[in-house]
Amino acid sequence: MAGPVTAAVLVIGDEILSGRTKDRNIGYIAEYLTAIGVDVREVRVVPDIEEEIVAAVNALRVRYSYVFTTGGIGPTHDDITADSVAKAFGVAIDVDPRARAMLLEYIKPEDLNEARLRMARIPAGAELVPNPVSRAPGFWIGNVIVMAGVPTIMQAMLDQVAPKLQTGVRMLSETVRADAREGDVGGPLGAIAQVNPEVSIGSYPFMADDGRPNTNLVVRGRDPAKVAAAVAQVRAMVEGLRKPG
Amino acid sequence: MAGPVTAAVLVIGDEILSGRTKDRNIGYIAEYLTAIGVDVREVRVVPDIEEEIVAAVNALRVRYSYVFTTGGIGPTHDDITADSVAKAFGVAIDVDPRARAMLLEYIKPEDLNEARLRMARIPAGAELVPNPVSRAPGFWIGNVIVMAGVPTIMQAMLDQVAPKLQTGVRMLSETVRADAREGDVGGPLGAIAQVNPEVSIGSYPFMADDGRPNTNLVVRGRDPAKVAAAVAQVRAMVEGLRKPG
Repeated sequence: MAGPVTAAVLVIGDEILSGRTKDRNIGYIAEYLTAIGVDVREVRVVPDIEEEIVAAVNALRVRYSYVFTTGGIGPTHDDITADSVAKAFGVAIDVDPRARAMLLEYIKPEDLNEARLRMARIPAGAELVPNPVSRAPGFWIGNVIVMAGVPTIMQAMLDQVAPKLQTGVRMLSETVRADAREGDVGGPLGAIAQVNPEVSIGSYPFMADDGRPNTNLVVRGRDPAKVAAAVAQVRAMVEGLRKPG
Repeated sequence: MAGPVTAAVLVIGDEILSGRTKDRNIGYIAEYLTAIGVDVREVRVVPDIEEEIVAAVNALRVRYSYVFTTGGIGPTHDDITADSVAKAFGVAIDVDPRARAMLLEYIKPEDLNEARLRMARIPAGAELVPNPVSRAPGFWIGNVIVMAGVPTIMQAMLDQVAPKLQTGVRMLSETVRADAREGDVGGPLGAIAQVNPEVSIGSYPFMADDGRPNTNLVVRGRDPAKVAAAVAQVRAMVEGLRKPG
């Protein structure tokens, strides 16, 4: 049986690192891929510097089944993702006639200036990822999928790509609300985690609407029977805590 | 003259990678540090796995002036950041009497169970970072600052740490709204970027309230005169585009 299908997300852009723009793609991609059976194992954010992008692409693509990049595929001089990915793969890059044709569905020929033609530069051997929002495509080369940074466009591209991804057994996740402080469940929860090594159990404190500290206990795993067994133990533990002394 | 002061942010937590929790710390820390003259150069998100945390801490701490971590310092078995950071530095870790005393400001002695005492485990040689929200401290070892994942607590810890950071010359940033599509400014903007190598110029498309595509052009740099010169050129370029024919 094949192992899990894994992914990394690589966000490219000075504007995220300066805090000027708040990223909205990491959480979206993480939730989306988890739901279809692809485990996101790592995220990196790097600046618009070619050697940083090349290094990150090459570090991640050998470690994970897929790498999803966002950002840096627009028409301006600071959009260097396509060239950087070509360099990471050691392939040529030039204006791709298929990408050019896609741009012309949206842009009048007289407006297809040199800047806009940058958006048709695609590394040799890449498949295009159609962009139903504003036409300029992303692309897929090797196991690296290059998408726009604008969330609406990125989301539309991910919809295009998802049906073609290899996916694994979906990670199941069940949440038990403890109605207790995290420090009070910590001991017994650790004991349950120890005897259930094939699931992972997370503990997430939150402030309930009644203003009291509360905790969500999340059991995650791929085997439904093992998840159910651990959830039963967590529920029993939580109910035990509720009984008066 | 010393070079810029740099930082990486390391977010630790399966719940971010699964998309269950949406990160709200990266953008906050990025904006905060940028404002005080610390450049965030890289962000990573890694799972609750010791070897991944150790590897990321060690990769980042040699590259940047500071590493800020968030998450994994609570009372449950899945909170392994403190132990992982101790391992990364090759130092011992045990319950720290100062941290224990801080917990006792908030927790009754009879409630200070083994799980809660985990929150007082601090690597040898670390300075504590007080937590005015819920007492359990973060810590600072070498150039690594370990903070909570809960945003309100992380923010309070960052306020504690900020006055003690070395900071560099603050990055200045000025935004010019193009009132044009990104593809129409791309060419002339690239030319301006080329003759102003000591500033960085970013181009960020957005949808204006009137429903028309618009573009923010952002000039960033540390030398006020050089930023002003580039901004003047960008403004002149933008005004040129607005002139009819």
